[in-house]
Order: sequence, then structure tokens, then C-alpha cells
Amino acid sequence: MSYIKNNFLLTNKTAERLYFDYAKDMPIFDYHCHLSEYQILENKQFNDIFEIWLAGDHYKWRLMRNYGIDEKYITGNASNKEKFITYCTVLGTAFGNPLYHWSQVELKEYFNCDLEINAENAEAIWNECNAYIAKNKVTPKSLIESSNVTHVFTTNEVFDDLAVFDKIAKKEYKFKVIPAFRADKIMNIEAARYLEFLGLLEKATHKINNIDDLENALEMRLEEFLRVGARASDIAVECVYDVPAKEEADNVLKSVIAGKKPSVQDTEIFKGYLTYFLMGLYAEYSVSTELHIGAMRNNNAKMLEKLGLDTGFDSISDTNSISRLSRLMDRLNSDGMLPKLIIFNLNPKMNAEIISLMGCFQSSEARGKVQYGPAWWFLDNKIGMEKHLEDLTAAGHIGAFVGMLTDSRSLLSYPRHHYFRRILCNYLGKLMENGEMTANLDFVGKVVKDVCYNNAIKYFNI
Amino acid sequence: MSYIKNNFLLTNKTAERLYFDYAKDMPIFDYHCHLSEYQILENKQFNDIFEIWLAGDHYKWRLMRNYGIDEKYITGNASNKEKFITYCTVLGTAFGNPLYHWSQVELKEYFNCDLEINAENAEAIWNECNAYIAKNKVTPKSLIESSNVTHVFTTNEVFDDLAVFDKIAKKEYKFKVIPAFRADKIMNIEAARYLEFLGLLEKATHKINNIDDLENALEMRLEEFLRVGARASDIAVECVYDVPAKEEADNVLKSVIAGKKPSVQDTEIFKGYLTYFLMGLYAEYSVSTELHIGAMRNNNAKMLEKLGLDTGFDSISDTNSISRLSRLMDRLNSDGMLPKLIIFNLNPKMNAEIISLMGCFQSSEARGKVQYGPAWWFLDNKIGMEKHLEDLTAAGHIGAFVGMLTDSRSLLSYPRHHYFRRILCNYLGKLMENGEMTANLDFVGKVVKDVCYNNAIKYFNI
Amino acid sequence: MSYIKNNFLLTNKTAERLYFDYAKDMPIFDYHCHLSEYQILENKQFNDIFEIWLAGDHYKWRLMRNYGIDEKYITGNASNKEKFITYCTVLGTAFGNPLYHWSQVELKEYFNCDLEINAENAEAIWNECNAYIAKNKVTPKSLIESSNVTHVFTTNEVFDDLAVFDKIAKKEYKFKVIPAFRADKIMNIEAARYLEFLGLLEKATHKINNIDDLENALEMRLEEFLRVGARASDIAVECVYDVPAKEEADNVLKSVIAGKKPSVQDTEIFKGYLTYFLMGLYAEYSVSTELHIGAMRNNNAKMLEKLGLDTGFDSISDTNSISRLSRLMDRLNSDGMLPKLIIFNLNPKMNAEIISLMGCFQSSEARGKVQYGPAWWFLDNKIGMEKHLEDLTAAGHIGAFVGMLTDSRSLLSYPRHHYFRRILCNYLGKLMENGEMTANLDFVGKVVKDVCYNNAIKYFNI
Repeated sequence: MSYIKNNFLLTNKTAERLYFDYAKDMPIFDYHCHLSEYQILENKQFNDIFEIWLAGDHYKWRLMRNYGIDEKYITGNASNKEKFITYCTVLGTAFGNPLYHWSQVELKEYFNCDLEINAENAEAIWNECNAYIAKNKVTPKSLIESSNVTHVFTTNEVFDDLAVFDKIAKKEYKFKVIPAFRADKIMNIEAARYLEFLGLLEKATHKINNIDDLENALEMRLEEFLRVGARASDIAVECVYDVPAKEEADNVLKSVIAGKKPSVQDTEIFKGYLTYFLMGLYAEYSVSTELHIGAMRNNNAKMLEKLGLDTGFDSISDTNSISRLSRLMDRLNSDGMLPKLIIFNLNPKMNAEIISLMGCFQSSEARGKVQYGPAWWFLDNKIGMEKHLEDLTAAGHIGAFVGMLTDSRSLLSYPRHHYFRRILCNYLGKLMENGEMTANLDFVGKVVKDVCYNNAIKYFNI
Repeated sequence: MSYIKNNFLLTNKTAERLYFDYAKDMPIFDYHCHLSEYQILENKQFNDIFEIWLAGDHYKWRLMRNYGIDEKYITGNASNKEKFITYCTVLGTAFGNPLYHWSQVELKEYFNCDLEINAENAEAIWNECNAYIAKNKVTPKSLIESSNVTHVFTTNEVFDDLAVFDKIAKKEYKFKVIPAFRADKIMNIEAARYLEFLGLLEKATHKINNIDDLENALEMRLEEFLRVGARASDIAVECVYDVPAKEEADNVLKSVIAGKKPSVQDTEIFKGYLTYFLMGLYAEYSVSTELHIGAMRNNNAKMLEKLGLDTGFDSISDTNSISRLSRLMDRLNSDGMLPKLIIFNLNPKMNAEIISLMGCFQSSEARGKVQYGPAWWFLDNKIGMEKHLEDLTAAGHIGAFVGMLTDSRSLLSYPRHHYFRRILCNYLGKLMENGEMTANLDFVGKVVKDVCYNNAIKYFNI
Repeated sequence: MSYIKNNFLLTNKTAERLYFDYAKDMPIFDYHCHLSEYQILENKQFNDIFEIWLAGDHYKWRLMRNYGIDEKYITGNASNKEKFITYCTVLGTAFGNPLYHWSQVELKEYFNCDLEINAENAEAIWNECNAYIAKNKVTPKSLIESSNVTHVFTTNEVFDDLAVFDKIAKKEYKFKVIPAFRADKIMNIEAARYLEFLGLLEKATHKINNIDDLENALEMRLEEFLRVGARASDIAVECVYDVPAKEEADNVLKSVIAGKKPSVQDTEIFKGYLTYFLMGLYAEYSVSTELHIGAMRNNNAKMLEKLGLDTGFDSISDTNSISRLSRLMDRLNSDGMLPKLIIFNLNPKMNAEIISLMGCFQSSEARGKVQYGPAWWFLDNKIGMEKHLEDLTAAGHIGAFVGMLTDSRSLLSYPRHHYFRRILCNYLGKLMENGEMTANLDFVGKVVKDVCYNNAIKYFNI
């Protein structure tokens, strides 16, 4: 039987009461993820646990590679079952790794399976979970609904077809699926397929010859996104650049349209300008910005060629500059165009810099207008979350925090919300029992509920 | 009733004994603060708790902004009482924030008020504290004396009038007020008002046409500061620059005197040279240097224009370079001109770099000649202090540490010394009960007393 | 009597069982150290504890300097006994410093001395330990054998005479002494004595006129090292540079041979190329690479002149770039020439960056082909190790970890392996008792044994 008990991660009685009486039953609002809206619409029943668990999850692939597993058993031509057995074997001794917890919790929450994951139990788990899937007709919809989710924000490119969201809306699922507006493919002007992406945007709008055309096109698309309920936008850049004159960005865009490869400097000019333009646009339309910074992508050229993007070869960058971020925010603020902003930082050494900077750009527009986003990707684990809470509370206000999201490609990742909630309740429960904060449980419980759900609902004007 | 108990932050019996038997009653030597010497001299009775607590404290303002409070209730035209009520409301849920602790402790220590701070109690606290102020005739002198303070080092510009310190000395307060010598306004050559500040220095000394004149003027002023008892100097720069030739600094100074705006490079040349010159001067006069590095100031241009400097819009910089700091210290050391030096670093990611560098420049001149200053500003909180102690003891010697200061503009900040002492005693008490250090209480207690007070007294030759 | 108890650093029963039943009796494989192979061969009996403990240990010297001790009592002309007494006095209050633990443990493990180290006991310790040394004829061999060491990897320059290793092998000690191949003196082209070192390499191989000659010479020497059993190589650079064209490195080498001083850029070109060449060579010969990055050396020019290299004046650098490290690894990987690699990083702020990068270059060649080396030098202490374990397990796989080494110049440093093992067992024991991982003791105990010894044996193909 698995080591996961009812009081998992809750180290005292107050933490337990906060979790069970206030946090546990709050619904889930997942304001950033990478689920496929088509998968949700189609709602096809799964064949085996491999399809749900391992087929697309590069977190798990990385863990196997770290243990020296041959790619055959990761993304190669081994059978679903062989891959599953291999993963269970590797996971069995991955003490301290977040997957060690997540995977065990997922078995319990979605397949009612209590077996401890390791080589010995792998076959039994395979059988038990697959039987469960067959018997209970597990589908995307059933997974999301059983997780008590009210809203899912998918992440969509500006040129994506939005009809699918109308179709989902008609399905009358118990949860809403809403796209977040993401212009990254239009921002990444250095990409080999850039003109193809620009063409898709043109198809959805009009001919784009210069930066004004581009800005108009983006605004048209944003209005379309708003029509299907969008409240959030997303920008993912390795780092924030200085904001150049619009004319410079115009020149870069025209030269790329004319077929020139942009230089590194060209790329920085274009991204610097477009980040500034987009954030201003989001402010104008009252759309919150989720800014993801600090990922250094595709480090392994050989594997990029073999497996493509988002297959587990990214890492944490060190190229961000807090002064550039300050100048960007100050420029927008001076122009009256700073949107509600959630900064997701991937490099933990910058926590203190960014949280202290955020405090310089708050306003009465929203409680916690500029947010320090929850621990993310490589930091989405117990020590990352604990450090996030410590750093955030030391220089910010926990009562304003919009809380957790999954940022996941997996339909099984909602227990990460529970994981976060347990850590949050444990953090507060320890402070309470140590006499470092009020002992008033209802008073604290209300803050817990806000952080779990209510703050995000308010923040995104849902 | 408030959550603060007698054993606040003391998690075992040994920690309690260290605190109550050794630390608690040691006097306070506050070797760096931003109190107004005029306020201390005038010693006017306060009208209400707002005046003491909220009128000038940008830490509190930031916390309110983080919670989305309108500036009207922070620095605007709301009444003192409205602002006070708002602050209490915001503070009530600021779990984990140092102000949550400080404010509660201050109510207890200075106004004998035990009510837990929150929206519900705000009005009662307002009444209780104001009644206390009226009844007990609370003044700056009474606040400092009741705090068992023996010495206060204010921070003064080189051109400040020092007569006020003679006047305070004649008052026969139970504590001494002594200025620390700070040349920042003369160092910051890029400032709009630079020539005005230079004029003030000229008025206090002689005409300044070049770098030699400036050096003479600064030395004359330092001698004046020494006459009124100064033992410390202060330098606050975002980062340490390379040391250029004196001639280059001379050229920059002359061109600025001639009305030219200095370039970024000019500014770095001038600051780089002047930092070097001043530290050498301080060494010559046996004046300790308190070097504050790592603040990125005035990030929000709009609010700077509206509210001015030091109103809560600063943050943590990332522009320091440990190799530049190494070269500066090595140059001074090679010249035989490295002063006693306390490095206050605002960016926690540099703790290990700086503490390991310090160990390369110690000497028998003083126990802990180069000090890693206590956790400061954005780090002046429980996790900041605990990390400071861990990092310092791992690579340095705790027995040499000069301990805590307030760095504060508030007359109520002496409990931060108690806060630090509790954390220090708890850190050692836990090591003792865990069997990680000697169990000899008197032996450890002596070190505690040294860190609380005696080391600083020796270090500054008081 | 000393504070060190049987359960030192073990805070619960499970941790104790992991340590005593699984970790404690595993042999020691020290895969990187700075012991002198000649001292091991000669095996001379020591005269007093100063010779073993303080004569060459710059860690201890630094601690004394941090406390303001005069150099006379550190490296000067005070007597051995005076220096010993001084060290004990300083150490007595160095709570939290790793030396405070190491020194106490060493007295117990090697001299059966239980006295707590402080000023009062210093003389008694001096007498007790010296009597023990005389009575038990303590020698290098006896120290290593009593430590249950099976393999010692010394660190040797490419031109070192390897005959000494054959002689040691004939001695039939219970442990093997094997050199690791280190080309640093040939890499550091900016060094004053560079041509002298190149001459030593020529003497051991052939005339070196250009980069091809150099590459051949290095390969010849590597083959010699392999003949005496070498399995590891070592590279120590402040930071990793970009890889230039071979031609550029050739030009730099030729110009230096012709008597020119290399510029900073020349030096970076040469080191960048040679790092790349050497790692490729190591891959070809299946030799693991131990890459040490992040030390800023010889900060204090005055003391460098007085005492020379490696005397306690080094610190932590901030010049590394994770993108340069990524490009280097990717280049080698694309060429099919990435060796097994252990990255020893000295700057804790880079932990997360490097560990996440490592995960992009694993393969089935080895379990944990790219390793995050254990906490090292300034990080070789309790908080450094705990952070290492937390960061490693959060993003990597603990079951693949090759574990601890001493990196030491001291024959008494093997208890650092025990220190690490206690921390490892305590880390896991706490997770187990907190319900954060399996409670199966034997299952976890096997991983503990692997990390203590077996993984390193496999990794180095011993």
C-alpha cells in the first residue's frame, strides 16, 4: 500500500483543519494550461493508462533519461506496457522528485489505486488501472469534472480557430473552456517557420506589410478571443528586452517579410517592441497578462531534430535582467498602459528581485495587480512552492495571491492544486502553531479559500 | 488578545534560556539608522499613533499598495484615523510579512496594547494607543530611553550642520547620538541637484574646482564629524564600480562643474574613484565603513514625481559584480588602505559570494575586520535573518559578528533588535538541543551577548 | 566531553537505522582529492597533531583569519603548539561552521579523543593526541586504511611522473591509489610559468610547436595515465568559455610560444578550445570528466605574494553563464563526444540552472551520465549538502547520484564521507517518517548503499 496518507504534507493539526475544513473542497480554476481544446471536445475514451499518463508528458521522460533509460522505452518503439513498467521502475527510487508524489497521488485520485509505484508492483498497477479505465469509461470530460474544475484557460495562438470553443460551450460540460491569447509565434521572428505563422494570421485577418498592419491584426484577433470569453493573455520569452522605437521594429518586420534572416539584435528589437505593444494592448482591453520568463529551450540540438519541441530538453535561463524588467514596467506605467500582470519566473535566484520590483507597480485597480506567479515547471515542487510562499509573504501580501495553476499538458494534473493547497495549509498551520500568527481558524481559513479560488476569480473578472 | 507570547520565535527551552538569561537585557547600540537628529533634539510629544507609526514609514505604505489600497489612504488626503484603520485591515491578513510581526510587537512594547491587529480591532487599538500617548507623554526621547539604547548613529551628509549634535549632547539624554559620515550626495554626480549639493559642501569648506579640492573638503568635513564623535561612515551605491585613474575622475568633476551632464560612463568613473578615495580616507582616520550595495531605486517614475525619494518604490538590483568588489578591496588592501568594512548586501543570491570574498581580506586589526552586515531592508525578516546566520556561520565566524541595527526612519524600530536576538537565540538553541554544538549555556551565552552588543562596541572603538 | 553523540545529525529513528544498518559500514571510494601520492608512498610517521591537522589546511587558516588572529599564529613563526592552541580557541565559538564539526569528529575518529575543542581544553587535547600518535605510530597508510577506503583518486598534472603509482601498487596497501588526469597547467596559458609547464610536457612527450602537437602530446600522456589505471580527468576553470575555431587556438598557442603575453581574449579562446578538445578526448577514451567551475582565485595580491597559491584567499565567482555551458555540452553531444561528466559548481545560485540543464544531456550510456557533483569547498557543509540534496532530487534522480568525495589535502578528511552519509540518511529518514516516501527500509537502504559507494564504482568502471 502506498505511503500517501490522508494527512499527506500536513504536519500538524491546524494544517489539517485548514486543509480539510477550508481548502480541500474549493473548486479549481486553472488559469493557465496546455490542454488541447480538441481533445476536450472530442472526449474520446482512453485505452490504457499509458495514453493518459506517459504518452505526452516530458516531465516523466526527463526523469527516465536522468536514470539512464534508453530512449526506446521513453519515446521509442517499445510497447505501451514496456514503457509503463520502465517508468514505474525508475519512479520507485526517485525520492524527493515531484513526480514521485504526483504519480502516486494521480493513481489514487483517478484510478482508486493504492499500490506503491515500483518495479515489483508495476504489472499489477498496469492491470488495475486499465481495468478501471475500461469499467469507468474514463474520458477527458470525466477527468476534468471529477476534479471539480470550473474554468480551464487553454493557451492559444492568435491565429487559432476559435469555433471549437463555441462547440465546447454547447456541450454543456460542468466546466468552461476559455482560450488565453498568446502571440508567441508572431513574436518569435527568428523562427524558421515565422512567415508561415504570419501567413496564418493574415488569413485570419488581412495582409500584413508593416508593424501597423501587424498591430491591427493582433487587435482584431484579440477582439475575437474576447468574444469567446478570453480574460487572459500569455507571453513566454527567455528574457525581457529593452523597448526600442516602433520604427526600428517596423524595419525589422519589413526586412523579414522581404526574406531577410533577422540578426540577434533584430530579434531583440522586435521582441522588445512587441512585448511592449502587446502588454499595452492587453491593458486597453482589460486582459490580464501572464508573463513567463526564464526558460532556455531546446538545449540538445540532436534531440530537437529527432523529437521536436517540448520533449524534455529545456532548462532554466540566466539571461534576465531586473533593470530591463523595471524599465519595461515603468514605461508602460508611465504611459498608463500597464496591464494586470502575473510574472512567472523560472529562475529561483530572481525571486527576491522580482517580488521587490512588483511592489513598485501596484495600484488600486486590483488587489495584487502585479502578481508573483506560483512556482512553475522546474520549481513546481515542494521546495519550490515553500520558497515561493516564504519569499512572497516576506515582501508581498499573501491575501492578494491568485494561487495555483497546472501549466500542464496532462489531464491528470489537477491534484497539483491539492498538492499546493496542502503546502499552503501546512505553511500557515505551522506559523499558527508556532505562535507566529493569529490562531483564529475561520479568519485564516477565509484567506485560504481566497488563495485557492476566489482571488483568481476576481482577478480575471470571471 | 494577540498571538505574540513570551516565547515568541523561541522554539525550545535552550533558546528561551539564551534569550531571557543572556540576550534580552543587553543594551542596544544602533550603529546605522535614518532618524532625524532634529526630531530627537526637539523631542516634541506625539499627537496620535499615526504620527509615530505610519506618517513616514514606506515599508507600511508598500504593504498597503500590494493589497490594492488607493493612494488616498496611504499618502493621500484621508484622515490619520482612516489611514490607520486601513493599515490595520491590510495587516490583519499579511501572514508571513515582517510588518505583521513588527507592528504587533510595537503595539505591545510601546503602548502596552495586546489587541490583535485587524479590521475588527482597529478602532479599539486607535483609541487605546492614543490614550496611552496622551497619558504617558510619549516623545522621541522617551521612546529611545525606554528601549535601553546607549548609542544611535544617525546618517548625515558631509555638509550637514553638526551643531545639533553638540546640543543633543548637552541635553544629557541617557543615550548618545552620533552622526555617521555619508558622502553620497557628493558621490551621485548624475543627480539633477548635484551642483547645489557641491555648493553646500563648498559653503562648509572652500571653493571646489577639481578633485584635489574635493578630497580636501571631504577630509576637512570628516575631521569635523570626528570632533562630534563619529566612528562610522556610510556609502550607498547600487553597485561597486572599477577604480579608474584619479585624472579621469578629475576630468569628469571639472566638466560637471562646467555645466556638462555626465554620461553613464562618466558617472561610473566618478563613483568608482570616489568610493576608492573615501574608503582609503576612512582607513586613514580609523573610521569604519558601512557599504550598502544592491538597491535599485525609484523604479516608478510617475510616483517619484508625485511623492519624491524614499516613498516605497525601490527594489533589489542585480548589477553587482563580485569580481569588481574583489578588485576594489584588493586595491585598497595592496595600498594598505582597506578600512574596517561592513558590507550590507541587498541581493540574497550574492550572500555566499560576498561572505567567501570577505574571508580573503581579514587581518588582526580587528576581530572580523570585514563584516557581512545583518539582513537588511527587503531581507530584514525572519527568513532573511535565518539565511544570514546560516550563510555567515557556514563560511565565517559567528563570534566575530557585530550584530543587528535598525536602518530605520522610525522611532519604534528597536524591537527589531529583539526580533533579531530571538532568531539568533533560537538558531543556537536548536543547534544545541540537536547536539550540533556545545551544551555549555554560559559559554554560548557569552557569544550571544557579544553579538547583541559587545562586539559592535569594540568594533567601533566606543 | 564533546557534544558529538552516536546519533549526530540523525534526527529520527528511521534516519538512525538507515545510517547504522546501511550507510556506516560501506567502504569509501574517494574519486577526487589533493593528497600527495609521495606522502602516501613514503608513509612517514607524524610527530604531532599539528603536522596532520593544521600544517597545510587553508580552511582552518581562513577561520582563524576571520576571527582576527595574527598571521604569526596561522602560517608564521609561532610554534606548532601555539598555533594549535590558537586554533582550538578560535574553533571553540565557531558555532555553525563545518570545521567546528569536522575537527571534533576527527579528534574522535582518529585519536579517540572526546574532549570538546575550546581554549580551556586545548592543552589537554594537544597532549592526548600527541601521545596517541606516538603510541599508535600514525602514518598516512594507517589513517587511510583505518578509514575503510578502497580507492583514492589523486589529482595529477599531465606531465607528472607516474612511476610513483607503480611503486605504491607494489606496496600492497589495502587501498588503491590512482591518478586523475588534469591538464590545467597546460590550459592556463596566461600563467607566468606557462612555458615552463609546456616544457615539462615536451620532456614527457615531444616538441610542441602548435595545437596539433599539443593535442598529440596530451593524448600520449592520457594513454600513460590509463596504463596506471586512471578512470577520471579533472578540469578546473573559473567559468566555461565559448568554443572557438581550432585555428584561433592554434594562433594563440603559437604566439605564446613565440614569447607574446596573451590578452584576456586570447586566454578565453585558448581555454575555450582546450576545454572542448579535452572533453572530446576523454569521451573517446571513456574517461569521466570532473569539471570544477566557479572559483575566483587569489583575491588578495599581498598574501599571494607572501604565501603563494592555495593558502585561503579564494572565493566564489559569478562569471559563469549557463548558456555557454549549454552550448559547450550541445556541441560535444552533436559531435558524439560528450564524456561522462560530473559538474562541480561552487556558486549555489546556479544549482537549479545546472541541474535542469544536465537533464537535457542524459543517455543510456550510464546511469546519471551527467552528474551534479556533491556540495564542494565553500558549500561542503550541512546547509550546502542539504540544499544539494533538495535541488538534486527536485529536478534529478537521487538513485543515480555518485555521492561524496573529499576534495581535500588532508589525510583526516574521510569523516566528511560519514558527515555526508548522516545528512543523506537524515534527509531520507525525515521524508520517510513524514510520509513523503515509501516506508520500506530495505528498499531505501539499497539506494543509500548505492549513493554511498556502489554508484561511483559503476560510474568509473572500477
